[in-house]
Amino acid sequence: MSLEGRLSINLATTRGSWGFAEAVEGCLRHGITAIAPWRDQVEAIGLKEAARIVEANGLRVTGLCRGGMFPAQDAAGRQANIDDNRRAIDEAKALNADCLVLVVGGLPGSSKDMPEARRQVAEGLAAILPHARSVGMPLAIEPLHPMYAADRACVNTLSQALDLCVELGEGIGVAIDVYHVWWDPELATQIARAGQMGAILAHHICDWLVPTRDLLLDRGMMGDGVIDLPAIRRMIEEAGFHGPQEVEIFSRDDWWKRPGDEVLATCVERFNTAC
Amino acid sequence: MSLEGRLSINLATTRGSWGFAEAVEGCLRHGITAIAPWRDQVEAIGLKEAARIVEANGLRVTGLCRGGMFPAQDAAGRQANIDDNRRAIDEAKALNADCLVLVVGGLPGSSKDMPEARRQVAEGLAAILPHARSVGMPLAIEPLHPMYAADRACVNTLSQALDLCVELGEGIGVAIDVYHVWWDPELATQIARAGQMGAILAHHICDWLVPTRDLLLDRGMMGDGVIDLPAIRRMIEEAGFHGPQEVEIFSRDDWWKRPGDEVLATCVERFNTAC
Repeated sequence: MSLEGRLSINLATTRGSWGFAEAVEGCLRHGITAIAPWRDQVEAIGLKEAARIVEANGLRVTGLCRGGMFPAQDAAGRQANIDDNRRAIDEAKALNADCLVLVVGGLPGSSKDMPEARRQVAEGLAAILPHARSVGMPLAIEPLHPMYAADRACVNTLSQALDLCVELGEGIGVAIDVYHVWWDPELATQIARAGQMGAILAHHICDWLVPTRDLLLDRGMMGDGVIDLPAIRRMIEEAGFHGPQEVEIFSRDDWWKRPGDEVLATCVERFNTAC
Repeated sequence: MSLEGRLSINLATTRGSWGFAEAVEGCLRHGITAIAPWRDQVEAIGLKEAARIVEANGLRVTGLCRGGMFPAQDAAGRQANIDDNRRAIDEAKALNADCLVLVVGGLPGSSKDMPEARRQVAEGLAAILPHARSVGMPLAIEPLHPMYAADRACVNTLSQALDLCVELGEGIGVAIDVYHVWWDPELATQIARAGQMGAILAHHICDWLVPTRDLLLDRGMMGDGVIDLPAIRRMIEEAGFHGPQEVEIFSRDDWWKRPGDEVLATCVERFNTAC
């Protein structure tokens, strides 16, 4: 069965071996025609060349990673972040991405004020949304696991992300990454709600390892951990999202040390057997 | 100002240096008259001797750690866990503890079925509650940070814990540990709800370090991390709980390597300046 429209590779997954062009070649060798690159990978090869490669190969770009990181200690910092997000929207558009993925940012500076961080995120989102709408680029808030609340994202549940979407209106939805949300007692309810809102823009997969040895860089290959991936896929499909599942694995000491072709072959095999 | 009724030391905090008796002596040297021991520490000295020390020194025991760990792969395993929890209730009673703290357990065996794990927890709680009521020992569900959902506790938010309390009725409440709940967007709402239910049985403190280098054993001393401790204390006090704040720090590579007296002196200083 073709992987077309079903499997995407987030290029963080092959970061250990490959830049943008090598990763695309690798994906194509393995029958994978959808990718999600990171901005630094696009910048390294140049936006125009990246867009040319995408178009020449008929690739689907399931998301550009990432915008967000709104909070800052002062107004100038927040404005710089907003400006950077506007550029990210343009880059996502140039790549014809399905969405710009947003990791919204954590506590500003040395502050301990989570409500303030969340206010700054809402303000930042509101500030960039008109530009996103005007170019037709959907924004995807990615709620991050609560263990990243301080330093990466103060939006930590699907419920909270969807509340923001309701507040902000058209043009913004969510990226659902199993790693961040699998534990949530409200998971089924909130995925169904996201579906009713038409707000599901992306579906990221990997696995939660036990033990997890590093908070950021020890994500598992699908099937090696404890997440019930088929159950979550069913919830997301029943909620009406049928886009590709995007594999995103940060794994400094394991998958990033293996050859890219081994990583991709394993992704394909596990996609077929464990997802 | 006396620390009486205001500060308690969970004896995990001084686990690096001291057993039960040494920890009690240390606490008394620092003017601390409330403790929360772990079952293995009580077992090492013997329950009777531990109870004698508590009574002879007029100590308040803010909680016994810990019961819970209900899920198991088969019925025999679940029954063994229930039996063990009944013993833990008796031990808490012998120590005249304010509550038995429950870390409810994670996925049973190699299962990936979180809803099933949560059913097993609810069943386990229902099975031990009559005994807890009959001896007058309050049970305190401690919602654990979502990063422990797989292997330690599948109750991961205050909201979820309070829903269980509503379902189970009298005799059960929550232990609120800032480390586990500080990130929760519903924190203020759920603490207020817990107060209205009269369900707050304990208030644990420490801090969340950035970066956190180990999922389990890298908790910070109050003031060294990002948690707004005074804000959470105000929420809990406004919700009607005025019991001692209990310092519980798991810190393999830092505080557990320091002399117990240095740890306690720092706890007292930070309690007075950062909480």
